[in-house]
Order: sequence, then C-alpha cells, then structure tokens
Amino acid sequence: MARRARATRGRPPEGAAPASPHVARRLPFFEVLDDEQIARLEAQVDWILEDVGIAFRDDPEALRLWRAEGARIEGDTVRAPADWIRALCAKAPRQFTQLARNPARSVEIGGTSQVFAPVYGPPFVRDLEGGRRYGDIAAFRDLVRLTYMLPSLHHGGFVTCEPCDVPVSKRHLDMLLAHMTLSDKPHLGAITEIGRAEDSVAMAEIVFGAETMAEHCVILGNVNTNSPLLVDKVVTEAVRVYCGRGQGIIVVPFILSGAMGPVSTAASVAQAMAEAMMVCAYAQLVRPGAPFVLGNFLSSMSLKSGAPTFGMPEPVVSNYAIGQLARRVGLPLRCGGSLTAAKIEDAQAAYESADSMHSTMLAGAGFVLHAAGWLEGGLCTGFEKLVMDADRLGGYQKVLAGGLDTSDEALARDAYAEVGPGGHFLGCGHTMRNYQTAFYEPRLSDSENVESWEEGGAQDMRRRAHARWTQMLRDYVPPPIDPAVREALEAYVARRKAELPDAWY
Amino acid sequence: MARRARATRGRPPEGAAPASPHVARRLPFFEVLDDEQIARLEAQVDWILEDVGIAFRDDPEALRLWRAEGARIEGDTVRAPADWIRALCAKAPRQFTQLARNPARSVEIGGTSQVFAPVYGPPFVRDLEGGRRYGDIAAFRDLVRLTYMLPSLHHGGFVTCEPCDVPVSKRHLDMLLAHMTLSDKPHLGAITEIGRAEDSVAMAEIVFGAETMAEHCVILGNVNTNSPLLVDKVVTEAVRVYCGRGQGIIVVPFILSGAMGPVSTAASVAQAMAEAMMVCAYAQLVRPGAPFVLGNFLSSMSLKSGAPTFGMPEPVVSNYAIGQLARRVGLPLRCGGSLTAAKIEDAQAAYESADSMHSTMLAGAGFVLHAAGWLEGGLCTGFEKLVMDADRLGGYQKVLAGGLDTSDEALARDAYAEVGPGGHFLGCGHTMRNYQTAFYEPRLSDSENVESWEEGGAQDMRRRAHARWTQMLRDYVPPPIDPAVREALEAYVARRKAELPDAWY
Repeated sequence: MARRARATRGRPPEGAAPASPHVARRLPFFEVLDDEQIARLEAQVDWILEDVGIAFRDDPEALRLWRAEGARIEGDTVRAPADWIRALCAKAPRQFTQLARNPARSVEIGGTSQVFAPVYGPPFVRDLEGGRRYGDIAAFRDLVRLTYMLPSLHHGGFVTCEPCDVPVSKRHLDMLLAHMTLSDKPHLGAITEIGRAEDSVAMAEIVFGAETMAEHCVILGNVNTNSPLLVDKVVTEAVRVYCGRGQGIIVVPFILSGAMGPVSTAASVAQAMAEAMMVCAYAQLVRPGAPFVLGNFLSSMSLKSGAPTFGMPEPVVSNYAIGQLARRVGLPLRCGGSLTAAKIEDAQAAYESADSMHSTMLAGAGFVLHAAGWLEGGLCTGFEKLVMDADRLGGYQKVLAGGLDTSDEALARDAYAEVGPGGHFLGCGHTMRNYQTAFYEPRLSDSENVESWEEGGAQDMRRRAHARWTQMLRDYVPPPIDPAVREALEAYVARRKAELPDAWY
Repeated sequence: MARRARATRGRPPEGAAPASPHVARRLPFFEVLDDEQIARLEAQVDWILEDVGIAFRDDPEALRLWRAEGARIEGDTVRAPADWIRALCAKAPRQFTQLARNPARSVEIGGTSQVFAPVYGPPFVRDLEGGRRYGDIAAFRDLVRLTYMLPSLHHGGFVTCEPCDVPVSKRHLDMLLAHMTLSDKPHLGAITEIGRAEDSVAMAEIVFGAETMAEHCVILGNVNTNSPLLVDKVVTEAVRVYCGRGQGIIVVPFILSGAMGPVSTAASVAQAMAEAMMVCAYAQLVRPGAPFVLGNFLSSMSLKSGAPTFGMPEPVVSNYAIGQLARRVGLPLRCGGSLTAAKIEDAQAAYESADSMHSTMLAGAGFVLHAAGWLEGGLCTGFEKLVMDADRLGGYQKVLAGGLDTSDEALARDAYAEVGPGGHFLGCGHTMRNYQTAFYEPRLSDSENVESWEEGGAQDMRRRAHARWTQMLRDYVPPPIDPAVREALEAYVARRKAELPDAWY
C-alpha cells in the first residue's frame, strides 16, 4: 500500500515539519537535579556573588554604577548580596518577543518557546567542493540566504562566518545590511566595539523606527564574559548600548572546564550562573526590564592536548542541569548547539552534534545559537553542516512541539476494528487519515534499500547535503523589502564606511 | 599546563571511562508523560488485553494453558482481565542477575541498571576495506572477539551477524560455542526453533551446571511477537524452553507504525505494551518468577517508500514514553539502540544512531540490544560502526552513572582561592587532583586542530575506526576457560551437528 500510495501523493513540504516562527514546546522539561543538588549549586552561586566577587575591568562607568547602587567594590572586584542580585534578575522578562522585519517571523524567547539560530563566529568556511578557506562576504551572504530558506532555523544569528575580505572596522555594516535585506528573519547585532553596537541599533532603527524600538525588542547583542569571573568593557558597553535602548542582550560565560573554570561540571555551571546573573543585574540597573538571555557555553577538554571537546558526557549533563537552574532564576537560557570538534561532516561531527543538540533540546534553551553549521570547535562554518544540522533540527522541533499525542484519534481504536491479528494497517481508515502528518521525514536521510542507494550513486549524507544547498542557492528569492528602507540602509552603510578607517584587526 | 602535563602521564585506560559490568544509573529518569496521558495509555492497554485480545497461533499447548487458567478464548484469540494480566506481570522480577561465565562480568538487568549489547540479526556485514558481503562464521567470531574487548559493551548479545556459510539448522551451535569460548561476557541463546533453544540451554548447562541454573539466570532468549496482536509458537515455545528452566526471555513487539500498528506513536506504544505484557503473563503461568524483559521496537516510516526510518522524532518520543510505562508495570525494558537506515558510517548513520541512543539512555532501558554495530535498518553489521558506537556508549555510560556530582570536591572552592578574575585553572591544586578522571575521552573522536589532523592524513572517523578494530583483533587474547568445559562444549556441538540435517533455510 505504501508503495502504491506513493504515486498519488506529492512530497510534503520539508518533511511534514510544520514551519513555525519558533518552537512552542509541549515536551516536559527534564528535571535532572534533586533538591539537595539545587541547594548546593545555588549556595555556590551565592558564595561567588557575595564572597568571591566578579571583576568589572577597564570600564569606570560600570564600577561607578555598581558603587552608586551600593555594591561592595575592592579594586575592580564587585561583590553584592545574592538576594539583591536575584531580585535584579527578576526584573528581566521571563519571556519576550523579538520582532522580525517580517512580523510572521517574530520570535518568542524564553518560557516554553525555543528558537534555533545558526553558528556564530567562525573565521573559516568549508564546503565539499571548495574545501576550507577564509570566510568572505560572498560566503557570508550565501549563509544568510540559506538560513533564511531553512524552515528549522527561526533566527538569523549574526556572524555565520567572518567576512575576512572586509576590514574588521567595517564588516559589521556589511553583515547587518545582508541580514536586513537578504532575509526577513530576526537577527543579532555587533558587539565587538561600542561604535559597532551603536551602528547595529541605528540600522535597526531604520528598519523598525524609533517608536517601535521604544516599546519592543528588535535586536540583541551576544557577548561573552572573560571567564573566570571577569567582565570587560566590551560586555558593559554592549549592555549600555543595547539595553539602554530597550533592546536585548545575551551574556555568555564560555568555560572550558579546567581552564576558565575548575575541572568540574558542577563548579563550572555554578560559576557560569554567577557571572551571567551579575551581568543581568548590571543590565537591569542600566534599564529595568531589559530583555536578557542567560548564556552558558561549557566545554570539556582533551587530556591529550588541552583542546576543547564537544558532544561529550560532561557538557551533556551541564546542559540538562543549567536548564533547570535558569528556569528557577526565571531567565531565558542560551546554551549548547550542534557542536563538534570534527574537521569535516563525518560521523564524528554528527555523533557529537546530535548528543550536544539532543541535550540542548532537553535543557529547554530558549535561544540556541550554533544550532547548525558548526565545525572544528567553532573555527569553521560548514555549508554541508548547516543544511545537515537544520535537517535534524526539524526532528527536534517535532519532539519538542509534539510531545506524545494521546488524543482519541492518536489512540486509533477504530483501526483495530479493521485490522486483526497478523494483519497490516497500511490501508486502514486511520492510516489514510493520518499518514501525511504522522512522520517527520528529513530530506537528507536516505532510508531506501542498499540497491536503490547504490543506483543513486552511493552518495553519503555530505554529498547529498552539497547538492541540496547549492540547489537552494539557485532557487533563492529575496524577501520583499520597502525600497525606501533599503536605500536608507545602503546610505547609512556608505556613510559609515566613508567615516571609518580601514582596520584589519 | 595541559600540554606540559601530557608527557608525564600515560594515556588513561579507554578514555577514563570506568569499566564496569553494567551501568549503575544515578541520572534521574525522564518522566515525560503526565497523569492524564498515563491513564489514557494504560486504559488503551487494558482495552487491548480485555476487548481486542491477542492471538496465540499454531500452538495448542499455549491455548490449553490459557484456557486452563481461565482466559477467554475465541478461535485462537485470548482475552483476559487486565488486572489479572498485570498481577501475573508483577510476579516477574523488577531486576535480576544474569550470570556470566566470568563472575566479574555478570550483569544486573532492570531497576537502575542498564546493559548495552551489540546488534542482533544482520545477514550482511560491511567494513571499509572488505565492503558489503554476507556474514560468515569468521566475521561472526571476529565480532564476538571485538564485543568481548569493548568495555562499553556489557553483554555479547547473540547473532552479531548471521554466519551464512553454516547451515541454518546448525549455525546456532557455532554461535553458542563462539560466545562461550571466545568471550566470557553474558550472552543470549537461540530461539528460531525449539530444538535450537534447547541446545542453547543445554550448552549453558555445560558451562554453569544444572545446580546453578536451577537458582540463577545464565541465558536468555530474545524473541519477537508477530505484531499486530499475534504470538506464534516460536515465542511460546521459546518461553517454555527458557522460562521452563528458570532462564529469562525478552519479548519484543516490532512495530513499524502504520504497518504493524496504527500510524500513531501513542497507539503503537500501547499495542506494544499489551503484546509484551500478555506474553509476560504467559511466561509467569509457565514459571512464576521467570525473568522477563519487556521489549519495544518501534520505527517510523518513509513516506516515499514505506521503508522503516530510524533516529526520527517519533521513535525518540516513544523511547521516552515506554520507559515510564515499563517502570509502572515493574518490568525491565528493552528498547532502542544505535539505530539507523544509513548504508555506511556517514553523518546520517551517526546523527540517527545518536538521537536513537540518547533517547534510549533516557528511557532507562535495562537491556539495550543493537547498542552498537547496526547499519541499514538492521540488515548489515558494520565493523567500523561497532567500535564507533561503542566509543559513544562510554559517554552515555558516564552520563548515566555520573549524573551531576555536587560534592565539596566537585564545587572546588579552594580553586577560587588560587585563581583570580581572568586567570586560569590549568595548574591549580584542584585541577591537578581531578583532571585525570574529569573527562570522558572517546578514542575515535579527533579534537586536535585542523593542521594536526591534516598532518595525520585527514582521516575521517570511519578510517580511524577501521584502524582501531583491526588493531584490536591483532591484540586479542581469549579469556581463560576450563579445558574440560571447552572439550565438553566442543563434543556437544560435534554430536549435534552429526545428528542434525543440513538445512539452508
């Protein structure tokens, strides 16, 4: 029957995965910590906030505000009562909307919503035909186009690769223009220097208008603390630029356990919580109610070389745990992603990415950066990896959004009246009513028999992924945009490029 | 520091994963169903047991026993009060020990213990150099040797490939002899025909003695129902042979949703529960207290061809759910595994296997067959796949057995006295005390930088896996065995081979 039915039905859109602007989670959260573990971890967080302290360095303005609000300052180290820090964190929204240029693509971040965004930051790109090379603006634009087209990526992220052929001082302008014109999904802005953050917010204002931005989050920055226990002015300036305008900020301690934190998952998780909560508190002092995403990026280490490792049991457990702690603080979480240390899209890349992403999904992370495209510990964006990961994200989306349906229709009692012992359900009424939406079917998985697969050229998944993304780029149609907005954006970029010096580092 | 320390320490054994005879789970279970979902699913199970019924076909002896015990029989369909079936299931142990020939390798099955075993049943084998070919007894023996050597495989399984060069009527003897002499891990026995099951138990008796077998489980059979709703005499005869001697049985409904069950995860899960519970009840009528493992093998389907698909969201959710239901019935569970429809060990194989196995781990499955080596929807055993999957199983074992350690040592407060803001923990006392056991390091993941990887020949994981298993076979040393036992086993096999006709199907 299934084979007969084939001819009469077309291929469902993107493997029967409902396209939606974000994941509305129905799957329960995995509560991995017991009460004692929670108490011990939260006591550790409080101890870091109150006794160990966190340094705010090279930014007198940040220290001034902390001092004015009554924190205890010694040198550049800030210590504060944990209750007060928690109360400040409670001012941030548990869930907020990031508007997209296309309102149908606006996302909810936090609560039971989950948002998937691509890899952020690699200086290199790789594809099956072109090999590994420095990222450039052409590759960047193609990655923005692909992200726009992939239904399981809800958000554009920002630096899907570094466009290394554009001066460092100006590339944020080209990246912003690409996100704002080649896609209509929401995206992040620049943070590396205060002027670049200001350009990001200014260009967002061209798209959305000052009035909308006064009331809504339309752009966020994503910035790392300098773990351990150090917040530099890149962070505090980005907070002031983004949150000062009512926009959002994602603050991420990156902790390689044993280097930037103790060689212990529990200690690293608590340290990350303390660092991010301290910056959240700072952001709420700057602007009460500013949207804030509590970040976590925890990696294990190779005993052979000290290199970071991904998809390993320690970060898997940390993802489970950090989700529970973040929900208790009431902040949206960013953690995990489809992470790997593999250099190419081989089985290692997929094993590590899947275990990392499966645990990220269970963590309930409201915002998942690096959900697709990451290779080489984040040094390289893989074109094949991007579409392969996105294919799997459709499956995670179905797990999260579907949970287990136990409705009358799902229990299918009428089918048992039609089908007896040893029979088959292929043609029964319940099957005919439901088969088209029953299964997620990723485009890049080949489930045919070995003979069919060999007839098709015995292509591995990487080869199939290459065919897919190159075809997608041929099919790409840019989303509509108001010509006046496009012209204003282009004029802004031209003006700022003329003003800024060429700097390559 | 990490690089300096390298020279002074040897490579820890198998990536710092503690070798243990089975996984003693500390990670909490993932309780995915709410009370209403549980009630609806259990009502569906009861409805199948009481109203729909399950056929016991071609085995008058089974029907005779059901009738004598008071079940309602119409034709060959057995219906029974759900309370009675549940009460019978409650006679099976929640947890039991399967003795191994080497007592240090005896396993606990059920409760918070989890046991990983390799793929079962493929007629084909594949390796990177030899390609795809029919399995033979030489390949079978190599697979038994590798399973013996892999620390994350606790159990030998049984048909790691079909030895197709030995007559069907006799190959169980060669397989049993290989498991009993080339390995000292626990294993399963044959079920395809009653005489083969009897040979399995008889050979186990040579190894363990009748006295031990009267008191302990030393061998189990693994047998599928004929879903939907049909139990044939292969099942009931295997139950009588194994359980009749106080040995164990694993009973597995294999349901391709939409074919052998409704095109619905919830309905397929409930049907599988009902089928397995009915056979468990039968086994407890045959021998109260017989060790029983409730099996589940649920697959989704390709809309293109009707082919089974693996690692997809529907079976992922079914794994989460079935674990919770099995715990409520109080039976050890077999489900999931490292499953894939991929033909080779490419990224598809790894993505699908990881999502399948991650959810299997969370399901709390007490016995995981197909935990390593499976390709092509179970048609082919991959030599590279076996060692690749086993590498990942070490990580799952650490997740399960470790949970999150929040002891004082794990919280590492002394490290913060040594390391200030922006410093590093590489050389601090806490790191020196803990780094050797902090991280699981799988042997087949390459986490070095791209330059080192290229210098090493740019080998993908599959190539590295090939080097590993071929080296393992060169290093293989058989476990010691009492020469008298070996001679008795060989004599049994020789005698039975002389008695049995050569049959090739």
